[in-house]
Amino acid sequence: MTDKPAPRTERVRTRRMHQRGAYDRATIDAILDAQPLAHVGYLLDGAPLVTPTLQWREGDHVYWHGSSASRMLERCDGAEVCVTVTLMDGMVMARSAYNHSVNYRSVMLLGRARIVDEREEKRERLRTMVEHMFPGRWDRLRAMTELEFKATTVLSLPIDEVSAKIRKGPPGDDDADLDIDVWAGVIPLRVEVGTPEPDPRGRQGVPVPDHVRRFRIG
Amino acid sequence: MTDKPAPRTERVRTRRMHQRGAYDRATIDAILDAQPLAHVGYLLDGAPLVTPTLQWREGDHVYWHGSSASRMLERCDGAEVCVTVTLMDGMVMARSAYNHSVNYRSVMLLGRARIVDEREEKRERLRTMVEHMFPGRWDRLRAMTELEFKATTVLSLPIDEVSAKIRKGPPGDDDADLDIDVWAGVIPLRVEVGTPEPDPRGRQGVPVPDHVRRFRIG
Repeated sequence: MTDKPAPRTERVRTRRMHQRGAYDRATIDAILDAQPLAHVGYLLDGAPLVTPTLQWREGDHVYWHGSSASRMLERCDGAEVCVTVTLMDGMVMARSAYNHSVNYRSVMLLGRARIVDEREEKRERLRTMVEHMFPGRWDRLRAMTELEFKATTVLSLPIDEVSAKIRKGPPGDDDADLDIDVWAGVIPLRVEVGTPEPDPRGRQGVPVPDHVRRFRIG
Repeated sequence: MTDKPAPRTERVRTRRMHQRGAYDRATIDAILDAQPLAHVGYLLDGAPLVTPTLQWREGDHVYWHGSSASRMLERCDGAEVCVTVTLMDGMVMARSAYNHSVNYRSVMLLGRARIVDEREEKRERLRTMVEHMFPGRWDRLRAMTELEFKATTVLSLPIDEVSAKIRKGPPGDDDADLDIDVWAGVIPLRVEVGTPEPDPRGRQGVPVPDHVRRFRIG
């Protein structure tokens, strides 16, 4: 423990991308691209809050969005935030309680968020948010109105101070425990995408498009 | 926006349990019990960090644990934290970009975490962590050693300042959009528990116990 000033990078033991890391950018990007759910940490009057939201990555930034009335988005603008994205891949069942674990992939991004306020950039990010998850959908939708555009805020965070944590594989039991008569192994977990449920309101019988049928998480 | 001091409860617009709330304790408990994955927000030198971990609930507290060497657990002890638990239930596909949404259940808990340092209480919490997720497993495992016990830290947070957010159901399209020729509805999501994969090391042929076969998330 030290109170000496240090770069936030160092303090939290993440690494800037130009440093040698346990995980390369391709691995980090793959995790970000596999899981839209993010948990954003920010401060309100000096205490932490963690809000779930959807993130999407484009190049060297991640983005998230919400209502322009959102306290979270307002507080994040220009502030230090932490965006964490996690996929839980399995429960790791060992012969001792201590060696139980979880298989997972997680990315933690740190930095100062900023509101995307340039009009054309913001419009493009809203388009790519939809296209990122549902390729081809944007052009089929009713066009965004000016009111909707103003009521939406987009935030960005550069992928710069970033770390990944990954655990995979079978339990790491102590050798002395391997003959204990208890089931050990991995219970795999993944996000199952169910059969699309058409809206009971509105136009009926619209065929399910590929961008819906192909949607996957993980 | 105001800088006037206010209770944290009020500042973040959660509610104490004795106040009338949109969600009762049974609803909050059901979400906490359905999803072991939590994202814990805490401060490091004044900036937020968000770490994924497993939580479990007993009565009016949630607990999480980790290595006694963990920076996260050390920083959380006695400090204001935010524990957020989220289940993503579906992608909500509307006829406008603006009305797209996500079906989800989320709980946000605020308060001061504390390390469970009383020996018997800590031992009991480690037991109930395993039993909570895998009933009947604890007694089959190799007993925890004193070294393992000391190397593990358990944190607790009372369920007091708490809020839930839930969205469910079909898209909330504007009436004027209902006849647009684009597929709208919900893409359901859930955590699929796969076929247990036995450890390739150690004793082979141990039957899969009920506490593994019955494991579910959601």
